[in-house]
Amino acid sequence: MAGRTIGAVGEHGFLSRLLPRLPVSPDTVVGPGQDCAVVRCGRQRVLFTVDALVEGTHFATHWLSPYQLGRKSFLVNASDIAAMGGRPRFCVVGLQVRPAYRARDLSALQAGIVAAATACGAVVVGGNLARAAQLSIAIALLGEAPRRLVTRAGAQAGDHVYVSGTLGDAARAVRWLRGAQRGHRPAQALRRFAEPTPRLQAGRLLAESGIVSSMIDVSDGLLRDLGHICEQSGVGAVIRTAAVPRSDAYRRALGSSDLLALHGGEDYELLCTVPERNLPRLEQQRARLGCPITCVGRITAGRRLRVLGPDGREMPIAATGYDHFRTR
Amino acid sequence: MAGRTIGAVGEHGFLSRLLPRLPVSPDTVVGPGQDCAVVRCGRQRVLFTVDALVEGTHFATHWLSPYQLGRKSFLVNASDIAAMGGRPRFCVVGLQVRPAYRARDLSALQAGIVAAATACGAVVVGGNLARAAQLSIAIALLGEAPRRLVTRAGAQAGDHVYVSGTLGDAARAVRWLRGAQRGHRPAQALRRFAEPTPRLQAGRLLAESGIVSSMIDVSDGLLRDLGHICEQSGVGAVIRTAAVPRSDAYRRALGSSDLLALHGGEDYELLCTVPERNLPRLEQQRARLGCPITCVGRITAGRRLRVLGPDGREMPIAATGYDHFRTR
Repeated sequence: MAGRTIGAVGEHGFLSRLLPRLPVSPDTVVGPGQDCAVVRCGRQRVLFTVDALVEGTHFATHWLSPYQLGRKSFLVNASDIAAMGGRPRFCVVGLQVRPAYRARDLSALQAGIVAAATACGAVVVGGNLARAAQLSIAIALLGEAPRRLVTRAGAQAGDHVYVSGTLGDAARAVRWLRGAQRGHRPAQALRRFAEPTPRLQAGRLLAESGIVSSMIDVSDGLLRDLGHICEQSGVGAVIRTAAVPRSDAYRRALGSSDLLALHGGEDYELLCTVPERNLPRLEQQRARLGCPITCVGRITAGRRLRVLGPDGREMPIAATGYDHFRTR
Repeated sequence: MAGRTIGAVGEHGFLSRLLPRLPVSPDTVVGPGQDCAVVRCGRQRVLFTVDALVEGTHFATHWLSPYQLGRKSFLVNASDIAAMGGRPRFCVVGLQVRPAYRARDLSALQAGIVAAATACGAVVVGGNLARAAQLSIAIALLGEAPRRLVTRAGAQAGDHVYVSGTLGDAARAVRWLRGAQRGHRPAQALRRFAEPTPRLQAGRLLAESGIVSSMIDVSDGLLRDLGHICEQSGVGAVIRTAAVPRSDAYRRALGSSDLLALHGGEDYELLCTVPERNLPRLEQQRARLGCPITCVGRITAGRRLRVLGPDGREMPIAATGYDHFRTR
């Protein structure tokens, strides 16, 4: 990849070369490539993750109020903790702002971070403020690890694939915000985009109980994130599009279109795999998860990811725009 | 500060309003406003810090090779751990890059981070790569806390003020890089700018031994960082300019000019205060610090920061460009 740009190589292409070469420490329990790292601090296992929202990439300043932006910056990180079954505890905030950004707006942004952190049981313990040409908020978050660790690696052929909540709403909001979708203001979708709901209670329970064999949060889209699970678990999967949960608002707006539900990112729902033998325990726990959870397919042997349409026939994934998993 | 921009309010002005209002947790041992936060993870006390280097603010891409930039990104964080007497352990990296940035350069940058982390006894356990209009590297670092904590608050009237290494070289490099200083390439200063040397051994020893009453790293300039100590300790200080340690290269280039030694940032030396009764122990430990350490003045009662010129007369601080501490 000598002369190639990072835009051409892509994040995944870059990371897939980088990660295997990173040194590890005996106190690294789970290294890079997961939603969070797990490190040993004394006898304690600690989750550690970082994520950033960047103006022009993840948002335009008129899409979200500063308070909403602050909230969301924290919540996307908390979702990574949820995907590992942890509890958010402490965060540090790396802010980059234009000098012309109003102090009042920065206070509101910070208040949003603090409010979201408080709601998730965490505190802001430090930060850094730097001048930049565009607004960005990077948050590094420490979490308490669950007794049983769960990662993206662990899915086995025959496991059932579950997803929490509904998918595609945030992507619908982004389409509307970018002006790519006409029609009236999709209020419900915009709310989902602005205020993700990290599935902390469900993530914790699914991990601690040992019900799930792998878990990830849906930040890049169902198929792409399922691709991460398949890749790291060395398995394939088959998904039934008709089973993918969609909100009423999504169905009203897009009818039976699968595109955003399968490929849309930023829903921050949990995607997990459940071995057949654990299905009864999942049903016992269902009411305690704090969110709906829906079976959308199964894990298969072989490393292919297949999508079955409403008629039960395989749909071409590439044709729907998804190529991340396949082109590796 | 309703309609004012963050450029007008400044980082310090903003943070001084924000920090007192942040919620704290019973497990927050040391909250925001220090070089690192200290949090409790189980029975372990952990240092937690974040710092970022931003293109156009902290560097231009032609100032440093990607490898040097990666190294420096880690080292400035390690310096914060040094200032709290800790050991760097684990970091996560939040990278923001232009799509046109070359993958090869990003690999070199990442290799620089890893090399610096390895040299400091730490590992990279995770990260995030986002598209942006300018290059920036935010690193969040976890460290092992020393048995005795040391912060910026703790200096008492009568304590001696010490600084490690020499000051002003990095600022001299920045002046030259910005074209504000003519003459031949200041190789030694450029090396200091490109490759800070976090004083981990000295920091650890000074904290663990209980010799120092307060400590900080000199990232914003001697007077400004001493201002932070004075402010948080509720004391003042008097500095003798003639005592401020300068490299031979600095003296050759700038003669007796104090400006950069007093005000220049990015030296990443340690600045600490030592009670009179601990001076003999400091002398005993001096050889084990791994770097020179020089007395530059004393802590005083009252909250004034005074600078004495070579003739022993007080110099006007504001006139030399330093106004951070005074204008509060």
